[in-house]
Amino acid sequence: MKPYIEMTKEELMEERKKVKEEYKKFQLSELHLDMSRGKPSVEQLDISMGMMDVLSSDADLQCEDGTDCRNYGVLDGIDEAKVLLGDMIECHPDNIIIYGNSSLNIMYDTISRSMTHGVMGSTPWCKLDKVKFLCPIPGYDRHFAITEHFGIEMINVPMLPTGPDMDMVEELVASDEAIKGIWCVPKYSNPQGITYSDETVRRFARLKPAAKDFRIYWDNAYGVHHLYDIDQDNLVEILAECKRAGNPDMVYKFSSTSKISFPGSGVAAIATSHNNLVDIKQQLKIQTIGYDKVNQLRHVRYFKDIHGIVEHMRKHADIMRPKFEYILDRFDEEFGGMHIGSWIRPKGGYFICFEALDGCAKKIVSRVKKAGVKMTPAGAPFPYGKDPKDSVIRIAPSYPSIDDIKLATEVFITCVKLVSIDKILEDM
Amino acid sequence: MKPYIEMTKEELMEERKKVKEEYKKFQLSELHLDMSRGKPSVEQLDISMGMMDVLSSDADLQCEDGTDCRNYGVLDGIDEAKVLLGDMIECHPDNIIIYGNSSLNIMYDTISRSMTHGVMGSTPWCKLDKVKFLCPIPGYDRHFAITEHFGIEMINVPMLPTGPDMDMVEELVASDEAIKGIWCVPKYSNPQGITYSDETVRRFARLKPAAKDFRIYWDNAYGVHHLYDIDQDNLVEILAECKRAGNPDMVYKFSSTSKISFPGSGVAAIATSHNNLVDIKQQLKIQTIGYDKVNQLRHVRYFKDIHGIVEHMRKHADIMRPKFEYILDRFDEEFGGMHIGSWIRPKGGYFICFEALDGCAKKIVSRVKKAGVKMTPAGAPFPYGKDPKDSVIRIAPSYPSIDDIKLATEVFITCVKLVSIDKILEDM
Repeated sequence: MKPYIEMTKEELMEERKKVKEEYKKFQLSELHLDMSRGKPSVEQLDISMGMMDVLSSDADLQCEDGTDCRNYGVLDGIDEAKVLLGDMIECHPDNIIIYGNSSLNIMYDTISRSMTHGVMGSTPWCKLDKVKFLCPIPGYDRHFAITEHFGIEMINVPMLPTGPDMDMVEELVASDEAIKGIWCVPKYSNPQGITYSDETVRRFARLKPAAKDFRIYWDNAYGVHHLYDIDQDNLVEILAECKRAGNPDMVYKFSSTSKISFPGSGVAAIATSHNNLVDIKQQLKIQTIGYDKVNQLRHVRYFKDIHGIVEHMRKHADIMRPKFEYILDRFDEEFGGMHIGSWIRPKGGYFICFEALDGCAKKIVSRVKKAGVKMTPAGAPFPYGKDPKDSVIRIAPSYPSIDDIKLATEVFITCVKLVSIDKILEDM
Repeated sequence: MKPYIEMTKEELMEERKKVKEEYKKFQLSELHLDMSRGKPSVEQLDISMGMMDVLSSDADLQCEDGTDCRNYGVLDGIDEAKVLLGDMIECHPDNIIIYGNSSLNIMYDTISRSMTHGVMGSTPWCKLDKVKFLCPIPGYDRHFAITEHFGIEMINVPMLPTGPDMDMVEELVASDEAIKGIWCVPKYSNPQGITYSDETVRRFARLKPAAKDFRIYWDNAYGVHHLYDIDQDNLVEILAECKRAGNPDMVYKFSSTSKISFPGSGVAAIATSHNNLVDIKQQLKIQTIGYDKVNQLRHVRYFKDIHGIVEHMRKHADIMRPKFEYILDRFDEEFGGMHIGSWIRPKGGYFICFEALDGCAKKIVSRVKKAGVKMTPAGAPFPYGKDPKDSVIRIAPSYPSIDDIKLATEVFITCVKLVSIDKILEDM
């Protein structure tokens, strides 16, 4: 098909009529579909049900070192869980603390601690006039919610196909002592599905921040969440890279099994340098009597080792892949060469990011909603919920069934066309 | 026996010789006993093993309202867990948030939030020159560790047999706006086993604090941890009492199942007014994706209802009671009328508190340690670890077996005698 932008007004009006007809049909079919959040589907949750059987009343709930997981004790996680998650996040078990059920909670607590107690002896951020964070955009709304909650000023940094714009990152962190951190989802990023290039990671490790207490918040949420077995993105391991670059303390790496076992009932972890761990544990021992060791043991007994996790993730991929491929193939078919939007074809993660014509994102999401399909609100992947170009739409294919995905995709495509035509007509 | 204080120097020297002989015998027997922390015994943990079987791979992990506990969602706890814990802590389910595995963690987070964001709109405490907490003494070391960690000044308030000295509490909170809270373990208190009298609770509810953001931190850690079935202490329910007194927002009530199911793998809760809940959730929704609903469901399916918890606690009591009674009976026999120490006979909780002669606590604990019995360090139950009179010793009878308790008690008694004799001889 001829791109809309090359059509005459008459051709466009004709096309609009056709598209509007389709849209009306969807409206009449009273759909109730939800592509708004990165929730695993019921089918995916069922994969992990075996986990409910590994610890029974006649099981021995002791760790290899004799620790009784049922009682008090162990602040930073049982050894075997550190080994398992260490293999998963490519870190030495000694560099890890295993927490409770939510890596978001660890990130929040990390910032909260920095506010009240500083970082490795630095001035508590709450005593400073101004604290700033760099926010690669588009990004994860819950990250931005944390920094906003603490009154931290957020500075947008554009995402490139290789990760955040490192020229900008390098310049900003070197020149402004108020910049204390940067939010990163380095692999299969939320929402674009971008994996940071080797060069990007190496430049991260070599940053020369003005603030001694600057830290990279490396949320490796989708580290093992591939769609394919061989055709996988590779991410340079940041902790080792920082160490090599002489910046061993500059990164906090976060991870969890939320989208591996059960969201909300998994285990989460931080991996970081020895110095940071000492700093964190100083506070952690005041904050808690320790985390749920029985659940840590449950995960270890179920997955056994990293190979177990990899095999398990293969099952997730088998469910996710057709959904991603359907959407992306249909985008290729309908939008290829049309110049009304762009996207990246991710090899993993939980999202597809559609970049519409400027000023169209809100209208598309609203149109889609009126046809019975719920999507992430436009603007959500940006600090303060403000998409400067109003163009980014996050698509979360995981939760609905493949049949619902097919339907929702057609609704979405129709709405993109309709809003794009209107936009082009307006601009004529 | 004649009280030491009435003995002549010669009689005392003779007695010392005898006691020292006994002490030496203990030293030679190379004991390794631990009465230092309030940990349940292995026998107690075994009671709850049935909990490992209630959720199996063919179980339906849905709540009554259809919520799939395996997926994301539900910030403040599943309804049935609110009902169960509501009955346990005598509060309406609507006044409850169910958290993760540690009530200490909730208390820490509550203070941390007050530091960074204030309380229901008040000035964040980190912006104030001075924040103070009242600390009934002796009390729980981990409470004091939290306030110390945040640089909050702690003011000692003596415990009376009826609870904290309310004359002092009333005067202090009314006159000093910097006083933002008070730590309370109102039932079977740690370490004395005191339950606050009805009058004490009513006076708490009627406090007129100078600080609008003053809150009572009501850690009801031992609410259902009775030793007897009928002969139980009763505690006036503080939340309702505050409401009656026109102070509905003045209290945070904390609780957990740590010493009911498994320490570290239980569920914890806060109960408070609607206004406080709104304030808390405002932050909680930023902090976490929600807590472990599968574990909440596990608890509900296992205990079923409050009667299930009561029956379950009866089994704990059957294990704890003989240990408490042995120690207390031996204290009666050995120290009755001797004027070398005092204690209260608790009807529940996890501790016995022995108040030795002034200046003797450290020496006794050290003596006991040299004979192979580990106890809570003297001073631990006080802010900054400083017992002004160096007289309080916390005894934790739960973890050792009854045979070990018997042995440890004899060691303790011998050490109390030895150190007391030395003290009296010194003072002669």
